[in-house]
Amino acid sequence: MILLDGKKTSIEIKEEIKKTVSAIKLKGERVPHLAAVLVGNDGASLTYVGNKVRSCEYVGFKSTLIKLENNISEIDLLKQIQILNSDNTLDGYIVQLPLPKHIDEQKVLLAIDSKKDVDGFHPENFGRMSLELDAFVPATPYGIIKLLERYKIPTDGKHCLVVGRSNIVGRPISILMSQKRISGNATVTLAHSRTKNLKKLTKQADIIIMALGIPEFLTSDMVKDDVCVIDVGITRVVDKNNPKGYVIKGDVDFKEVSKKAGYITPVPGGIGPMTIAMLLQNTLQARQWNLS
Amino acid sequence: MILLDGKKTSIEIKEEIKKTVSAIKLKGERVPHLAAVLVGNDGASLTYVGNKVRSCEYVGFKSTLIKLENNISEIDLLKQIQILNSDNTLDGYIVQLPLPKHIDEQKVLLAIDSKKDVDGFHPENFGRMSLELDAFVPATPYGIIKLLERYKIPTDGKHCLVVGRSNIVGRPISILMSQKRISGNATVTLAHSRTKNLKKLTKQADIIIMALGIPEFLTSDMVKDDVCVIDVGITRVVDKNNPKGYVIKGDVDFKEVSKKAGYITPVPGGIGPMTIAMLLQNTLQARQWNLS
Repeated sequence: MILLDGKKTSIEIKEEIKKTVSAIKLKGERVPHLAAVLVGNDGASLTYVGNKVRSCEYVGFKSTLIKLENNISEIDLLKQIQILNSDNTLDGYIVQLPLPKHIDEQKVLLAIDSKKDVDGFHPENFGRMSLELDAFVPATPYGIIKLLERYKIPTDGKHCLVVGRSNIVGRPISILMSQKRISGNATVTLAHSRTKNLKKLTKQADIIIMALGIPEFLTSDMVKDDVCVIDVGITRVVDKNNPKGYVIKGDVDFKEVSKKAGYITPVPGGIGPMTIAMLLQNTLQARQWNLS
Repeated sequence: MILLDGKKTSIEIKEEIKKTVSAIKLKGERVPHLAAVLVGNDGASLTYVGNKVRSCEYVGFKSTLIKLENNISEIDLLKQIQILNSDNTLDGYIVQLPLPKHIDEQKVLLAIDSKKDVDGFHPENFGRMSLELDAFVPATPYGIIKLLERYKIPTDGKHCLVVGRSNIVGRPISILMSQKRISGNATVTLAHSRTKNLKKLTKQADIIIMALGIPEFLTSDMVKDDVCVIDVGITRVVDKNNPKGYVIKGDVDFKEVSKKAGYITPVPGGIGPMTIAMLLQNTLQARQWNLS
């Protein structure tokens, strides 16, 4: 069994980005600049945004954190979006989700200039990605593709099962894996909550990408020998023995499945850190596209 | 075996559109207006565009055919696109493909205003469709969905195999079939030229959508009893006994597969006529969205 070490790989990618940023600085040019909009004080969101800002600093990007009150009106948030869209010193920005319930999340995401949409959530980016044009690929599926690529996992002609059809993970990774690309050309099945006989599908798959959000759902009796398992699940499960009061669980019963798998990602330390690295990669890409 | 009669169903849909157009006329409002851009004199393209124009007239749309010389420059074609984009009396238009080799097809398609892109080929429409927002759905996959819907074919939890990953048929129908929608919620596998053991997949599938372009590829030994088969293939095969010099063949060996299938579309008379009906439906939709 080979552990697909997302932490290690993400550090390698960040080091590469850092080098590129140093070269940009040496030429006396403006370094990439990422902004993050955070509305309210949700604990998990604060952690995620904090990690993103720290990673920006690490690679030498300029970063701006825009903290807004939980009771900001939708109109005022949209005004903020317009300010960011017209800021020429900014290459990309993200709006941390979820937003408070009184704000229409979709409306906000659609207001983001697709050229600054480094999260890749805007329909224009989603469409461009699907049609194999230059696009910002959402960071999580992008991270999966990159991890498979770095470990040289064969995907061409393999049967890949994606479990979960969310717009930010399951759907886009199912598209990417079946495209003519590195870490692509797989025969892809997309399964979801309405799927029957899931175990029959998981047992056939050469590659399984779990993006369901149900802790330890995939058990060892559900997979074949030497399967490659990518675990996108990150669920906080209450654990009184842990100082934090919770532990992070993936969608895979790692302890047992790892005994049968050929390749497997751990949680944490798998796709999570890759996601942040790919957000940085998208921001660097935005900087380069803006130059040209 | 139930024949999925696309011709009959397309006529029903056209009659419904015709009624809606009559009501628009009665209110003294402008009827939907579709334009088609045809570059050069390709035989098949002339036939397709001719059918589209006749269908427009049938349902009471205004239609405009813009015929351009084969040697038109890319710049002049793009100018024509800009004129169409800014024409407020026009609800939608299509550019008949293929374009002559000296013109960048992608560049032309990207220049079409996504609000007038009734073919649904623009990335913004593709992305909006994928993310389940209001969008123009490409006419062929839209026709498949509608045909399944009209015949009340159960799709929820069924295993649907799509063969072919083109941007205008295979890819979008694979997305649509797995979404939470009528004629959706299927577990979808997308197979293509790199797929191994295709027969194993076709034998498992409850619904098979063939969009490969290889005449009579799917044979009866490849399918299980009571399968639902949708044949998108339209290939002209030389036939000296036919007055036209060719016959139209689908991707399915209809004669044999129809003996085992529960449902099957014929070629011609299946998805082909549905495609034109859905182009009209998209144009009517464009008219309605433009009003609001």
